[in-house]
Amino acid sequence: MAKALSKRYAIGVDYGSNSCRALVVDLTNGDEIASHVYPYPSGEHGILLDPKDPNLARQNPADYIDGFITSVRKSLAQAKKVKGFSPDAVVGLGVDTTGSTPIPVDRDGMPLALRPKFKNNLHAHAWLWKDHTGHAEAAEITEKASKDKTGYLAKCGGTYSSEWYWSKILRCKRVAPKVFDAAYAWVELADFVPAYVTGTTAPEKIRRGICAAGHKAMYHEDWGGMPKADFLRKLDPALVPLATRFTHPPVSSENKAGDLLPEIAKQVGLPAGLAVAVGAFDAHHGSVGAGVKPGTLVKIIGTSTCDISVWPLDEDLADIPGLCGIVPGSVQAGMYGLEAGQSAVGDIFNWFVRHLAPQAVTGKGDAHVNLTRQAEQLKPGASGLIALDWNNGNRTVLVDPLLTGLLVGQTLHTTAAEIYRALVESTAFGALTIINRFEEHGLTIKEVINCGGIAEKNAFVMQTYADICNRPMKVSRSAQTCALGAAIFGAIAGGAFKDVASAQKNITGTKAKVYRPNKRAAAVYAELYKLYKQLHDAFGSAGYTGKLDNVMKDLIAIRQRQRGAGK
Amino acid sequence: MAKALSKRYAIGVDYGSNSCRALVVDLTNGDEIASHVYPYPSGEHGILLDPKDPNLARQNPADYIDGFITSVRKSLAQAKKVKGFSPDAVVGLGVDTTGSTPIPVDRDGMPLALRPKFKNNLHAHAWLWKDHTGHAEAAEITEKASKDKTGYLAKCGGTYSSEWYWSKILRCKRVAPKVFDAAYAWVELADFVPAYVTGTTAPEKIRRGICAAGHKAMYHEDWGGMPKADFLRKLDPALVPLATRFTHPPVSSENKAGDLLPEIAKQVGLPAGLAVAVGAFDAHHGSVGAGVKPGTLVKIIGTSTCDISVWPLDEDLADIPGLCGIVPGSVQAGMYGLEAGQSAVGDIFNWFVRHLAPQAVTGKGDAHVNLTRQAEQLKPGASGLIALDWNNGNRTVLVDPLLTGLLVGQTLHTTAAEIYRALVESTAFGALTIINRFEEHGLTIKEVINCGGIAEKNAFVMQTYADICNRPMKVSRSAQTCALGAAIFGAIAGGAFKDVASAQKNITGTKAKVYRPNKRAAAVYAELYKLYKQLHDAFGSAGYTGKLDNVMKDLIAIRQRQRGAGK
Repeated sequence: MAKALSKRYAIGVDYGSNSCRALVVDLTNGDEIASHVYPYPSGEHGILLDPKDPNLARQNPADYIDGFITSVRKSLAQAKKVKGFSPDAVVGLGVDTTGSTPIPVDRDGMPLALRPKFKNNLHAHAWLWKDHTGHAEAAEITEKASKDKTGYLAKCGGTYSSEWYWSKILRCKRVAPKVFDAAYAWVELADFVPAYVTGTTAPEKIRRGICAAGHKAMYHEDWGGMPKADFLRKLDPALVPLATRFTHPPVSSENKAGDLLPEIAKQVGLPAGLAVAVGAFDAHHGSVGAGVKPGTLVKIIGTSTCDISVWPLDEDLADIPGLCGIVPGSVQAGMYGLEAGQSAVGDIFNWFVRHLAPQAVTGKGDAHVNLTRQAEQLKPGASGLIALDWNNGNRTVLVDPLLTGLLVGQTLHTTAAEIYRALVESTAFGALTIINRFEEHGLTIKEVINCGGIAEKNAFVMQTYADICNRPMKVSRSAQTCALGAAIFGAIAGGAFKDVASAQKNITGTKAKVYRPNKRAAAVYAELYKLYKQLHDAFGSAGYTGKLDNVMKDLIAIRQRQRGAGK
Repeated sequence: MAKALSKRYAIGVDYGSNSCRALVVDLTNGDEIASHVYPYPSGEHGILLDPKDPNLARQNPADYIDGFITSVRKSLAQAKKVKGFSPDAVVGLGVDTTGSTPIPVDRDGMPLALRPKFKNNLHAHAWLWKDHTGHAEAAEITEKASKDKTGYLAKCGGTYSSEWYWSKILRCKRVAPKVFDAAYAWVELADFVPAYVTGTTAPEKIRRGICAAGHKAMYHEDWGGMPKADFLRKLDPALVPLATRFTHPPVSSENKAGDLLPEIAKQVGLPAGLAVAVGAFDAHHGSVGAGVKPGTLVKIIGTSTCDISVWPLDEDLADIPGLCGIVPGSVQAGMYGLEAGQSAVGDIFNWFVRHLAPQAVTGKGDAHVNLTRQAEQLKPGASGLIALDWNNGNRTVLVDPLLTGLLVGQTLHTTAAEIYRALVESTAFGALTIINRFEEHGLTIKEVINCGGIAEKNAFVMQTYADICNRPMKVSRSAQTCALGAAIFGAIAGGAFKDVASAQKNITGTKAKVYRPNKRAAAVYAELYKLYKQLHDAFGSAGYTGKLDNVMKDLIAIRQRQRGAGK
């Protein structure tokens, strides 16, 4: 579908949990001509941990800055080897990041953690999305917000999460008052990076994204923007001024955050003054890079998943309980952005391989590959196992970080591959629970487009998702949809396209291979899903009043049938 | 306490799940002067399996015969090197075995599996105790027996198990009618071995033990012996004659099964005509070898556990629901023998090491040792995990083989050592559930004596049992209490002692080291046990009507407290 554009390019910079990636995209055809990944050097795979508290996950803001410089510089160096490319043909740059990942900053908008005084204080660093230390604060916010007639929770699924902005700030107030007092404001990573590279970090200058503000910080036009003082005061009076620090209202990522600072431009090798788009979360940009549109659910499958869809602003849409948010403009202008997700997917598989079945057990080569090879030989239900995918809590639909993993059905013969398969299945059951929730509230999910390394590389996982969700699974053509989406917004901010839809026509697409559900597998999984749902409701919801004594017996009955035993 | 006996010896032969062991015992002081272990050569570690059905577990009767000859011969060869020993000073031989392990036999009492025609037919082999293929038949027997006014189930805990005699025979009738038709009778392994070596296998000659008959075959004086024809007819008319095959009523192991056949005596190097005691189950003999008496619970901890106690026949004793049986004389004459047990203990640890954390993962040396070393560094509750010890079903108190393992509380940081510890703890919670059941029905458990390799070698497991059961844990002085108990009965049958109590005075004892409960650990475990009991009742009992949504949260709260987090 390449149009007769002269060769123009945009750059997307995508901040993940362990590294950041810069991607150079040809805007005539979506070709990804160069990229570079920068692993964060601090902590364990870029994450600062506390051995005493598995809920804690922080990051060093210095890694973000170094990551921008190195990844953009090196991707450009690589792009220069491509015929026809020139840095002057780059029209814009976009940024997406994990979130909610708020950073305590000073009066100038600079992270406290960069100062020697706070360098070794974990609370002064970035509070990574998966930090769950604020679970008590989240419960308190949920409780107080649910009593407030403003309806703060209606747009974020009815429960405020420990992963989100205010839970983390309130937690900091309580456990690290010195850090809290030193922080003039708290800025989302998605807003910090574009501000930093355009010299607009000061709270009166910064152009924030509606994505982070709307999904995580309770920003909504219905109540005039940030949550009101009387509500914040009930949580802690010290929160009140934090809601009024920023001058400009948040906007969607089609807008420009600023112009690339000359000193940064020089370091990375781009023209000074280049348009930098307003930042947003990785999944939101990723959904754009994967081709999101009304009726399409995009699943960004990584260590966790984000599930994103959009719905026209001019059509009716009910509030959906358990969703991470319904925010006008958070994905693209003119659409509601709907966000859901699973707190751990790839992280669960990695946990299993790291602690229970590493390569030393599974044989030569990559443990994931070996386990997948064994797991795909098994029949659905033949292991007798079922698991809950809650090793990192449940984001959608229960919004509860104080949930944990569960495995049931193991015998004395249960193998590592059987458990690996059960874990894969558990994440698919979690995915189906989200799709069902969307559809129960009037949204149609006509197609599912998957992206991320797992969707890209693991046909067994995709087939399992197709069988369990009983829907065809498509895979995004790009392996780097987040960075690609960021580049699309960079291009729009730089004037190369008028909107997302016209950019997507040139740039996005899905692979030829579509995973279609196997009818027999789907029928067995429909039985297993009933058991998953029973466990899900019994362990996850206070309202469950049913029984559980059927679970082990039903699993055994399915197992015996699927193995052809006892005939 | 050695009395002034002249040096006399007895031999105990103990048939375990994977091997048999012969032990030569000095009757003046209990010294175990020689022993030899014979691993069964057939199948996987001596067990014939069906990859299609994890419930199936059979054994080759030829292994039992070879095992007797080899183990006795080699242990005697070893004993001859001990000063003062002579085969002529051996006064008797006793035998204990796993059970219920019934063997289909012909008119002469010889196993069908020894015939070429049935050699490759798994159903014609010995049905090992842990074979659970007859679970539907067990449920049917339970249902029909519970409607029968005879009260067949009152003496075996209210539920008839798939591990037991009639479940297996009825199962065979249904799945292998040719084997069933060829079988003139079904004889327990515990009865077969003494009969075989004394030439009394023929049903009119065999001297059966009350232990197997009373605990597993529904034999009780209350209804005149074996179950009545009108009851068996309701299960299957073909079962009726099987209850009348044997001429002699079963008796306790103080009695003689017969005299050692000259041809066997010659093969093993013992005097012909040596007294051979009536056989019984390993745990029952083991409890005698460990020093069982009223108020003492003996735990034989191996791949599974048997928990044995005794109570004087002349004192009142209520029926105890969920027990494997209350049988007069099954442990020793003049006492009720009470049997309970856990379907898997060591088997669960072995499963974990085999499939999920072998030595390749845990480091150099033995994986159990490495995991134990890591696990004992952790605090109770600090992993946030809890498990159900049901990988092989639940024997006591639920008597349900259609139950499976469960693990809850795993995060993305959960380690193999934490899971190993949770599995150890789960078996201790299972042990406590049994002790509580005894005490709820009027029996006092003043002391617990543990035996078996795990009790012997693993101080961490024993300390965990002490903390969780909140009782001191003693360990039997002998590492081979089953074989020692068998030798005691051999000695009694041979006239060296008048009864068990007088033999125990000379022969049995406990080690100096006693594991005493740590108060702080016991308090945490009391909290965790409530959660175990919740899961136990919810998954194991149809009567549970409570909730479960507290479980994950309570585990997290205990975890955080025990780690000292969030302060």
